[in-house]
Amino acid sequence: MNPPAKTRHAYHAAHALLPEGWAADVRIEVSAQGEITSVRAGAEAGDAERLAGPVLPGMPNLHSHAFQRAMAGLTETRGAGDDDFWSWRELMYRFVARLAPPQALAVARHLYIEMLKGGYTAVAEFHYVHNQPDGTPYANPAEMSLAHVQAAREAGIAITLLPALYTYGNFGARPLAARQLRFRSDPRAVLDLVAAVHASAPDDPDIRAGVAPHSLRAVDLDGLQDLLAGLHAEAPIHIHAAEQTREVADSLAWSGQRPVEWLLEHLPVDPRWCLVHATHLNAAETAALAQSGAVTGVCATTEGNLGDGIFPMQDYRASGGRYGIGGDSHVSRSPFEELRLLEYVQRLVHRRRNLTVGASPAVGTTLWLEACAGGAQAVGRAMGALRAGCRADLVVLDGGHPDLEGRRGDDLANAAVFAGAEGLVRDVMVAGRWQVCGGRHAAEDAARAAYRIAVAELLA
Amino acid sequence: MNPPAKTRHAYHAAHALLPEGWAADVRIEVSAQGEITSVRAGAEAGDAERLAGPVLPGMPNLHSHAFQRAMAGLTETRGAGDDDFWSWRELMYRFVARLAPPQALAVARHLYIEMLKGGYTAVAEFHYVHNQPDGTPYANPAEMSLAHVQAAREAGIAITLLPALYTYGNFGARPLAARQLRFRSDPRAVLDLVAAVHASAPDDPDIRAGVAPHSLRAVDLDGLQDLLAGLHAEAPIHIHAAEQTREVADSLAWSGQRPVEWLLEHLPVDPRWCLVHATHLNAAETAALAQSGAVTGVCATTEGNLGDGIFPMQDYRASGGRYGIGGDSHVSRSPFEELRLLEYVQRLVHRRRNLTVGASPAVGTTLWLEACAGGAQAVGRAMGALRAGCRADLVVLDGGHPDLEGRRGDDLANAAVFAGAEGLVRDVMVAGRWQVCGGRHAAEDAARAAYRIAVAELLA
Repeated sequence: MNPPAKTRHAYHAAHALLPEGWAADVRIEVSAQGEITSVRAGAEAGDAERLAGPVLPGMPNLHSHAFQRAMAGLTETRGAGDDDFWSWRELMYRFVARLAPPQALAVARHLYIEMLKGGYTAVAEFHYVHNQPDGTPYANPAEMSLAHVQAAREAGIAITLLPALYTYGNFGARPLAARQLRFRSDPRAVLDLVAAVHASAPDDPDIRAGVAPHSLRAVDLDGLQDLLAGLHAEAPIHIHAAEQTREVADSLAWSGQRPVEWLLEHLPVDPRWCLVHATHLNAAETAALAQSGAVTGVCATTEGNLGDGIFPMQDYRASGGRYGIGGDSHVSRSPFEELRLLEYVQRLVHRRRNLTVGASPAVGTTLWLEACAGGAQAVGRAMGALRAGCRADLVVLDGGHPDLEGRRGDDLANAAVFAGAEGLVRDVMVAGRWQVCGGRHAAEDAARAAYRIAVAELLA
Repeated sequence: MNPPAKTRHAYHAAHALLPEGWAADVRIEVSAQGEITSVRAGAEAGDAERLAGPVLPGMPNLHSHAFQRAMAGLTETRGAGDDDFWSWRELMYRFVARLAPPQALAVARHLYIEMLKGGYTAVAEFHYVHNQPDGTPYANPAEMSLAHVQAAREAGIAITLLPALYTYGNFGARPLAARQLRFRSDPRAVLDLVAAVHASAPDDPDIRAGVAPHSLRAVDLDGLQDLLAGLHAEAPIHIHAAEQTREVADSLAWSGQRPVEWLLEHLPVDPRWCLVHATHLNAAETAALAQSGAVTGVCATTEGNLGDGIFPMQDYRASGGRYGIGGDSHVSRSPFEELRLLEYVQRLVHRRRNLTVGASPAVGTTLWLEACAGGAQAVGRAMGALRAGCRADLVVLDGGHPDLEGRRGDDLANAAVFAGAEGLVRDVMVAGRWQVCGGRHAAEDAARAAYRIAVAELLA
């Protein structure tokens, strides 16, 4: 057991979003290790550093395929037939075939800086591009995994690297297609990647790994069981599930069960698990998934872009279901836009307003707190809340922004999510270190230049 | 007949979105009156001023209630019961009761600058706050109308001011509620406001007026006919229609007809008309509205925020229906976000991608061109296209933005709509004059300061 962390620095916020809701005059103390040691409302500023606006806890981005950032906007022209998720996937396969480690690094580093500037302070990287384009492993099989770790380290964002288990091409252990050979991995290889990530940063608590069985299309039960048997007991487990109706139909044809139904019956789905998308659930699955304690990873902008369908958010929350948000294909890098779209789609379907309320009657407050809590569980860290024992991840809004004029408490979160202004995030701290100051990241110009070169190479 | 306008200035763009699609090396010549005199692709730059990135035609914002900008984010906390459009309307009534002309001016001026920075170059202001809070007209009954004209003039955006006819409180000529007395107007008063707007700027072609019968709740057939009889033959006519299912039910109870059905049967709905929202249409209404030549004003972000429901975009477009976009309550000030949400909601409902394609297979190109054309028709101007005879409204994207790296033609529009980057709009010209340069408007700091003061007063 470590000794209690010692306070190194104190901050003072006129308004801050605490786990129990908004509070005024909040003093936040942070240790040299970057952990919050105490939070107290109604405090004098005293010797504390005064923050420049209202403070939110940093948001975890629980689902990222970093390389897809470079594809944003490149798949919006209709092909020969009807376009859908599956035709998009073919474009993605063609794009990824050109990706080499230096480009993966440049794209991820630029993306992670954009995430920080948007208000994300941690990312779960669901990483499946393991091999060379012909399927041969790299000389160091962890090269692509470690490129993402390096990108996170250079950007200053916390990362949970999730190497994907990707063994088969479809339900029923069908062989991989040639264009899927870059993703090929077996349980042993995935566990080696987990070990390589931890070995690369043994002393950095903000670089960690879990695993990502890609989907029921890509794995079988034996492989899943081998993977889980070799895994550290606290490591997160993420899986794509039920994103598409065709996937549900294929699962039924294969096993007689729907994907989430199958998962819940065959595997010990519990709070370590994150089911990404889980869009197509029947009522029984919705209730059972909620009761499992797992997190659903909602990726609203990507699900909109891919035409996936509409998650039964109201029933799931009514059953106590936990959720967080993911940027996924990165058509958006803003947690505010993710939450806004999530709520708007629910409003349009139900023809009601202000649906996501709970402990707070304010939608902005509720969405931010719930997505932070679910996201923190999914990335496997003590973060996502302004309370002692959590990593000191602060998102400071611009107190001088006109959209915050005259706002107090819940209306600060409501404005941030629903007024939709550019330039609202001012300063962002990860683990006690400022990574974004005055809307700028120290490495952004260099990262942007390298990103442009990488994109030019990918499109050449 | 005026003599043909004489070229005063020439511009050259490496890429420009012409009515027939993207073209390279485009020379655009503009008269001293701010009209495009010629557009030629494949041209040498020669003596022309080189534009800093790809060029789109300026987007008309066909539906605005400017004062609601100051409410953005203030209505997202659930009240005592279920929240919906109607509970939101009560909050809006309470908010508008505090609005005086100086605040209306400050809010609109700030908003119109935000619109320009977002890529809108014209606004149709659907204006219903005519009177003092107790319902007494101002000493000059046009004071509130003219405040919006002044705001547009100071911002440099073209305006079509649409004074609303608002006589009744509900279907069947029910009396106004006390909190609706600020909106009270009869056909004569509305026509006087139209005349006052034109008299205020007789020589400015970019300040014009039409009329806005508020909704079938607020008018009767006699009033509508009187209004149309007194109106200049080319003035636009806008009306809210079928935004809410309760409105449809109330219309059926009143007349036995649905709102759009009633409008199409009783009035000469033609290309002068813009039906705002038109969300709830049956199949017959969808086809008949499309065939009328009227424009549907889709306000995707506001309709999402208010939980209105989902417009049958696919059937309407398949019948040849015209549409444009409106910021409405201004929870967003970006035409790119409006178009993105419009397409995403359709994709989610239909579980397909790339739905809005037509002359171009690219969704970004199609959405921008169609919304420009519909919007131009709705605001009643020759604009929204880069062709001779149109007003010279240019939106120049930042050619150095990484999201445009390596992009050509359709993928430029796709990136602008779907990659969702901040800071993509660089320079904006309205009627031959630059209003936004390098992402900044000359009056933005002063307008922002005045806006903050106005909001503080409204929330005091």
